[in-house]
Amino acid sequence: MSTAWTSRYALRTKGITSSAIRDLLKVTQRPGMISFAGGLPAPDVFPAQRFEEACHKVLTQQAASALQYGATEGYQPLRELIANNMARYGIKARVENVLMTSGSQQALDLIGKLFINRGDRVLVEAPTYLGALQAFNVYGADYVSVPSDENGLRTDQLEVSLRSGPKFMYVLPNFQNPAGTTLSEGRRHELVLLADRYGIPIVEDDPYGQLRYEGEHLPSLVVLDRENLRRDTGYSIGNVIYLSTFSKTLAPGLRLGWIVAPPDVIGKLAQLKQGADLHTSTFTQFVAYEVARDGFLDKHVKLIRQVYRERRDVMLQALQEFFPPNVTWTHPKGGLFLWATLPAGLDMKAIFNSALELNVAFVPGDSFYANDSGEGSRHMRLNFSNATPDQIREGMRRLATAVNKHLTGAVSHSELPVQV
Amino acid sequence: MSTAWTSRYALRTKGITSSAIRDLLKVTQRPGMISFAGGLPAPDVFPAQRFEEACHKVLTQQAASALQYGATEGYQPLRELIANNMARYGIKARVENVLMTSGSQQALDLIGKLFINRGDRVLVEAPTYLGALQAFNVYGADYVSVPSDENGLRTDQLEVSLRSGPKFMYVLPNFQNPAGTTLSEGRRHELVLLADRYGIPIVEDDPYGQLRYEGEHLPSLVVLDRENLRRDTGYSIGNVIYLSTFSKTLAPGLRLGWIVAPPDVIGKLAQLKQGADLHTSTFTQFVAYEVARDGFLDKHVKLIRQVYRERRDVMLQALQEFFPPNVTWTHPKGGLFLWATLPAGLDMKAIFNSALELNVAFVPGDSFYANDSGEGSRHMRLNFSNATPDQIREGMRRLATAVNKHLTGAVSHSELPVQV
Repeated sequence: MSTAWTSRYALRTKGITSSAIRDLLKVTQRPGMISFAGGLPAPDVFPAQRFEEACHKVLTQQAASALQYGATEGYQPLRELIANNMARYGIKARVENVLMTSGSQQALDLIGKLFINRGDRVLVEAPTYLGALQAFNVYGADYVSVPSDENGLRTDQLEVSLRSGPKFMYVLPNFQNPAGTTLSEGRRHELVLLADRYGIPIVEDDPYGQLRYEGEHLPSLVVLDRENLRRDTGYSIGNVIYLSTFSKTLAPGLRLGWIVAPPDVIGKLAQLKQGADLHTSTFTQFVAYEVARDGFLDKHVKLIRQVYRERRDVMLQALQEFFPPNVTWTHPKGGLFLWATLPAGLDMKAIFNSALELNVAFVPGDSFYANDSGEGSRHMRLNFSNATPDQIREGMRRLATAVNKHLTGAVSHSELPVQV
Repeated sequence: MSTAWTSRYALRTKGITSSAIRDLLKVTQRPGMISFAGGLPAPDVFPAQRFEEACHKVLTQQAASALQYGATEGYQPLRELIANNMARYGIKARVENVLMTSGSQQALDLIGKLFINRGDRVLVEAPTYLGALQAFNVYGADYVSVPSDENGLRTDQLEVSLRSGPKFMYVLPNFQNPAGTTLSEGRRHELVLLADRYGIPIVEDDPYGQLRYEGEHLPSLVVLDRENLRRDTGYSIGNVIYLSTFSKTLAPGLRLGWIVAPPDVIGKLAQLKQGADLHTSTFTQFVAYEVARDGFLDKHVKLIRQVYRERRDVMLQALQEFFPPNVTWTHPKGGLFLWATLPAGLDMKAIFNSALELNVAFVPGDSFYANDSGEGSRHMRLNFSNATPDQIREGMRRLATAVNKHLTGAVSHSELPVQV
C-alpha cells in the first residue's frame, strides 16, 4: 500500500535495502536447518543463573536508579569495570574515554554520523564486516578496499590507498569477521606507523579479541599507536578509536557495546547519541555490571574459549575430512568464523541453494566486499560458535555434499566431448 | 586535546551542541535540590517486584532466546501485546505495523533518517519537544513553527504553513511536552483534514496518552485519519505515523518505544534500524512482555494516574497560593508537565539562577522553540511527576521566592523616581 509517506523518503535511503544476510537468517529458522550463517554465540554458554542473581540484586537494591533515565555516557561503575578490564590488555583508557553504546552496531552508526560526509571515502579491508558497510552507507560513504590474506590487511598495499585521502580506516585486527584471520604483529606496527605518517586515523573494531583459542594475545592498534608514537601524552587514546562489546562475552541480547576515544570525540559522540536514543538501557547496564564484576567475566570468557575452540576444531576436522583438496580455508586462532575458498568458476548461488535443500546454511562471500569486484563469489563464511559439535559435523557433511555436487558438475561439464 | 579526529567531523555535526537541558540535569543532581526540570517518572511507582518475577521467569524458562540476538522488528509477543493494547484506544494496528525502537527517541531519529533531506522543513508546534528537534537537526531539518494555545496547535493558523510545503508535521496532541496542553477534539478533526487536503503527513507523538487525570480520552489523529478519510482501507494506518513508549507507563530505563506505520514505511525503518543498532535489547523486550501481560499494564497505569494526579494538584495549588496574579499557567489534564508564563520583560536567566541558589530547578522555555523568536523567554516548564507532594510544595515555595524577587525588582525599578 502506497501512502503519503512513500514519496517522501530522503535521498540517503536510496539503495538501502534489506541485507542479504538478514533475509537469509529468516530461512535458517526452518526446523532441521543447521546454520553456519549467523554470527550467533552459543546459547548453552549464556550464564543464565548469574543473570538471575544479578537481576534479583539490582531490582531489590537499586530499582529506583536501574529503571530510571540515565546518563548518555553510560553507567559509571560499568564504564570503570570496562576501563579496568581493558587495562589488562594494555589499553589505558580512563572512564571519560568510554562511551556505552547500544551494541557495537550503534558505535558504527555514531561514527558514521560524526565523520562521514556524502562521498567521503572509508578505507576497509576486503572482505570486511557487512554491518559496518550498512552503518556507513546511510551517510553516503564511498570505499577504498585494501586486500587481505591469512595475516590480515596487506599493509604492503596500503600506501597507495592512503594517498587517496580516506576519512579514516576501518579495521578488525583480531579473528576478523568474515575471514577469521588475524593481523600479524609486524603489520600492526606498520599500520599504525602509516596511519600516523599520512594522518589518517583508525577505527579498530575488536568484538572477538578476548576469544583467542591458540597463540599469544597481540597488542591492539590503540596500544601500539600510543607506545610507538605518543609516549608523551601519558594517555592511551590518540589516532585510534577502539570498539568492543559484551555481545560475544556475555550476551548479545543485552545490546551493550562501547567506544574508546579521545574526550573531545566522546563528547561529540555523546551529543549525537543523545539525539539517537538518549542513552542505552540503564537496566541492562546495571545487570551487566553485576554479572561481570568480581572476576566473573574473566572466568566466563575462559569457558567460552574452551567451548568455541572445540567447535572450531570440529569444523576444521570436518573440512579436512569431507572436502576435496581444491577447497581451502583459513585457520582462525579465535573468534566465531572461518572463510572457505572454492575453485574459481563455480556458481556460488547454485551451491548456496543446494546447501539450503540439504538443510545447511552459510553466507556467500560477496556480501562482505565494499566494492563489487566479483572477488567474493569463491568464498563462504562459516560460523562455528552457534551449532553443537555434532551439528557441526553433520552440517559440514551436508555442505560438502552440496559443494561436491557442483564441483563434479563443473568438472564433468568441461570433460564433455566438444561436439555434444 | 586535539587529535587527528578533531578536524574530521562531518558537516551535519556543525551546531550540534550539548542541550541546555542535559547540562542542566547535571546541576539538579546536587543534594538538597528539588528539581522540576527533568521529565522523570516517579521512581516510587516502578513495579520492581513484578520486574523481578518477570526476570526470574524469563531467565529460567527462555534464557537461550532472551539473551540472544533477535529480530530487528522486535519481539513478536510484545508487538502483539502493544497492538492489542492500542486497539482499546481505537488504533487498529496489526503486528506488522509495529516496529520496536530503543525508546521513542530512536523512533524520532529513524524518522529523521528516513525522511529528512538537508533543508527540508518540518512543521512543529511552538513550543515543541526538544528531543525531536535534536533528532531532526542532525539530518539538516529546517522548521516551520505554528503557535499553540491552551487547546494545542492553532489549526486556524495552519494553512499558510502547510502551503510552504513541509515534509511532514510533528505533533504531540496529548498533554504536550513542554506545555501540558491537549489538542481539542475539534482541532484534531481539522488537523487530519488539512493534512489530507495538502498531502502533508503527520507524525503523532503520544508518550503520555494513557496518563489522563481528568476528562474523557480524545481520539488519536491516527484514528481520526482512518475514520474520517480512509474507511475503505479496513486498516488503521495511512497518513499518520504514531509513536509511543513504555517509558512513562513501565520504566524509562528499559528504553522501549515503538512506531506504528504503514508496512512499506515499517520495512524501510527496519532496514535503517538494522544499521543503527541491529535490534532493541531482546532481554528488556522479553522482560517488558512478562511485566505488562495479563492486564498488569492497565492496573499499573491506573496507579500512576492516581499518583501523578495528586502531584499535579499539589503543584497547581501551590501556584495559586504562592505566585502573584500576573503569573499564569496551563492546567494539564494529564502527562508530566505544566507551563508557567511570567509577565514580559523579566530576565529568565536571572530568575533561573536565583532558583538554583534556592535549590530548585526548572527548564527555561526558550529551549523548546524551533525558531528563536524570543517567545520562550517568558515561560518555565515545570515537571510534577518526579518529586513527592511535600517536595513539590516546598520547591514551589522556593520558586515563588525566586520569581517574586525579580518581579519586585522589576516593579520597584520602574517605580524609581525618574531622576535617580
